[in-house]
Amino acid sequence: MSKRIIVFGGDGFCGWPTALHLSAKGADVMIVDNLSRRRIDAEMGVESLTPIADIGDRLAAWKRVSGRDIDFVNLDLATDYEQLTVLLAQERPDTVVHFAEQRAAPYSMRTATNKRYTVDNNISGTHNLLAALVEVGLDTHVVHLGTMGVYGYDGDGLELPEGYLDVTVHDDAGKAYPRSILYPTQPGSIYHLTKSMDQLLFQFYARNDQLRITDLHQGIVWGTQTEETRLDPALINRFDYDGDYGTVLNRFLMQAAVGHPLTVHGTGGQTRAFINIQDTVRCIAIAVENPPPAGERVRILNQVAETHRVRDLAALVAEITGAEIALVDNPRKEAVENTLRVSNATFRSLGLNPILLRDQLLVETLEIVDRYKDRYDPSHIPATALWTSDNRPGIVKPAKISDAA
Amino acid sequence: MSKRIIVFGGDGFCGWPTALHLSAKGADVMIVDNLSRRRIDAEMGVESLTPIADIGDRLAAWKRVSGRDIDFVNLDLATDYEQLTVLLAQERPDTVVHFAEQRAAPYSMRTATNKRYTVDNNISGTHNLLAALVEVGLDTHVVHLGTMGVYGYDGDGLELPEGYLDVTVHDDAGKAYPRSILYPTQPGSIYHLTKSMDQLLFQFYARNDQLRITDLHQGIVWGTQTEETRLDPALINRFDYDGDYGTVLNRFLMQAAVGHPLTVHGTGGQTRAFINIQDTVRCIAIAVENPPPAGERVRILNQVAETHRVRDLAALVAEITGAEIALVDNPRKEAVENTLRVSNATFRSLGLNPILLRDQLLVETLEIVDRYKDRYDPSHIPATALWTSDNRPGIVKPAKISDAA
Repeated sequence: MSKRIIVFGGDGFCGWPTALHLSAKGADVMIVDNLSRRRIDAEMGVESLTPIADIGDRLAAWKRVSGRDIDFVNLDLATDYEQLTVLLAQERPDTVVHFAEQRAAPYSMRTATNKRYTVDNNISGTHNLLAALVEVGLDTHVVHLGTMGVYGYDGDGLELPEGYLDVTVHDDAGKAYPRSILYPTQPGSIYHLTKSMDQLLFQFYARNDQLRITDLHQGIVWGTQTEETRLDPALINRFDYDGDYGTVLNRFLMQAAVGHPLTVHGTGGQTRAFINIQDTVRCIAIAVENPPPAGERVRILNQVAETHRVRDLAALVAEITGAEIALVDNPRKEAVENTLRVSNATFRSLGLNPILLRDQLLVETLEIVDRYKDRYDPSHIPATALWTSDNRPGIVKPAKISDAA
Repeated sequence: MSKRIIVFGGDGFCGWPTALHLSAKGADVMIVDNLSRRRIDAEMGVESLTPIADIGDRLAAWKRVSGRDIDFVNLDLATDYEQLTVLLAQERPDTVVHFAEQRAAPYSMRTATNKRYTVDNNISGTHNLLAALVEVGLDTHVVHLGTMGVYGYDGDGLELPEGYLDVTVHDDAGKAYPRSILYPTQPGSIYHLTKSMDQLLFQFYARNDQLRITDLHQGIVWGTQTEETRLDPALINRFDYDGDYGTVLNRFLMQAAVGHPLTVHGTGGQTRAFINIQDTVRCIAIAVENPPPAGERVRILNQVAETHRVRDLAALVAEITGAEIALVDNPRKEAVENTLRVSNATFRSLGLNPILLRDQLLVETLEIVDRYKDRYDPSHIPATALWTSDNRPGIVKPAKISDAA
């Protein structure tokens, strides 16, 4: 891959392994990040279970093991617009990969301050990037990390298409007209809402300015390491286990490793889509290599491998580890139970053969957790960000543990 | 009307007459505005054709003619969040009317700075209002000024419904499922885009927090004065004639009054929806009096009286005034010709009997223009904000005037 690529948000959980993977494939990679994920760690008083090296040490380690340079620029995409235009004019990237958004649904719902930060940061960041590409006059391909959450989880049994829904509308006389529309979104948190709003920004700039944009609606990521992050301890990826940033399967594995009951929200009847972090980076490389033509509508792909019901995931982890399961209050406002079927036809047609959940891979993740478990803080295990004042935190109450066990 | 109402953006073209009308109907009205419309006048080096009194003089005049107080608070909805929550907690309004957005499509397309201001200001403002109502815990009805432009003008001949579109989707086996979805938006400018994004904010807060929200998709406003603004010279409403903030019919009337050719963009084949400013204020009063129940989806009404093709409007004004018509370059990227049919069933069912374009009302507006025409600056007549670098400003070239004449 001989492309010049800027990875915005390249210091985060998906951004960092993506930057390494694109570099390993031969791309000329620059990371642009304001290190906000580290700042939020400090704000929340929590750290990645895995020890994360300084960005300079990360990049030095990559140079050491790969012989390749990745440049780094500390810039806030949501606020540093002038610097952004100067950078884009200098670098003239073939592709920008845009991860530079606050990405935790619980964090986005915690307080009015967090809601406002998530909206202001994510919308201004995405819009600044699009406006700057037009102002500088570049034909850069924008690859954006969306989320399955834009579709909502209202589960009517129909397969979720890739971004666009074929519908029929009728005129007054009953005549039918076919339409292909942007899937009507039902985001379930402020975070997911910002990705729905991003879709409208992309639609506009693709249409008005012929920007070439790929939006990847990703499932919930599990796992930590990729081929590249395994190469050196200073390259290790984040492992978030806390109630805000930890993703559900990783949280279960962590809870099992430290002897905490697996905290299942409500009945655990929520069905969600999943993907391994190794496939995240593969999918992004595939997207980078397949830009849509200028003037085409936004290309939307579902970046998912499989779907699972949350209580089934808990049962699987319990079976492997002997952990207890605790049904706890659901801090989120969401459907108690839902079904989910998702098309991932495009990535499969482009050669993705996704990693599926298997005991062995869970064991590998458990080993990582076990290695670093002395770093965990039990106070951060429960999910405490509430969607409304009627919700209750997902805290284990002794009676409920025994009920479920 | 015994309600306590805050009008955000109550110093603007629609906000000011709305505040007076609601006050005249007995409501306890407060205006909250950062006076940004006056700041943008200064930035653009242009003024309302009608002389606009200071906000203090406006309110003193209203007290003089009506005996009623309207309070004023200078606050920026997009940035002054803490003051906003304090204000809402003190005032506990029954209704907030939200006009506090940058509202000119051409201004929003002029430069990257203007694009960014429009997105940042409009999205942060709307979201701050919603987040603050939830944080303070109020059951306030939010009445928001949307725009017909969220629907787009792609003109497939079907009547535009009020916010929601009935569609049919089919499963793999061909079974049909009916759905009522938020109309798939096709905004044609950054300004219109922000109103499409607002819709997603409203959808989320109505669903997650049971906020009661009415979104009014308004057509292009024409006219200047209302029953209340006519009562004193210091109450006079804005008349914007410039290429950014002037609306099309008002611009034609102004051009006719000063002997400038009527500048028709492209073929003038654009069909748009229109409403008189007097009906704007009536519609908002009707919306205020009819809040949706908490827990209901956002109530979306089309606030329009009729539709016209732009070249037909120009012909009507030319017929009355003897003005020439000039077909000029279209600075906008839009369909050359479109049809438009719009439902306004709800406002009609609630008693609106809209004012329709008639010669007599145009003459009234012409008289206002004639009275203040010594205040106009001819350099601001052309529409010069370009949608893309391929567009050209709507400037009259001598050859084209004679072609069209």
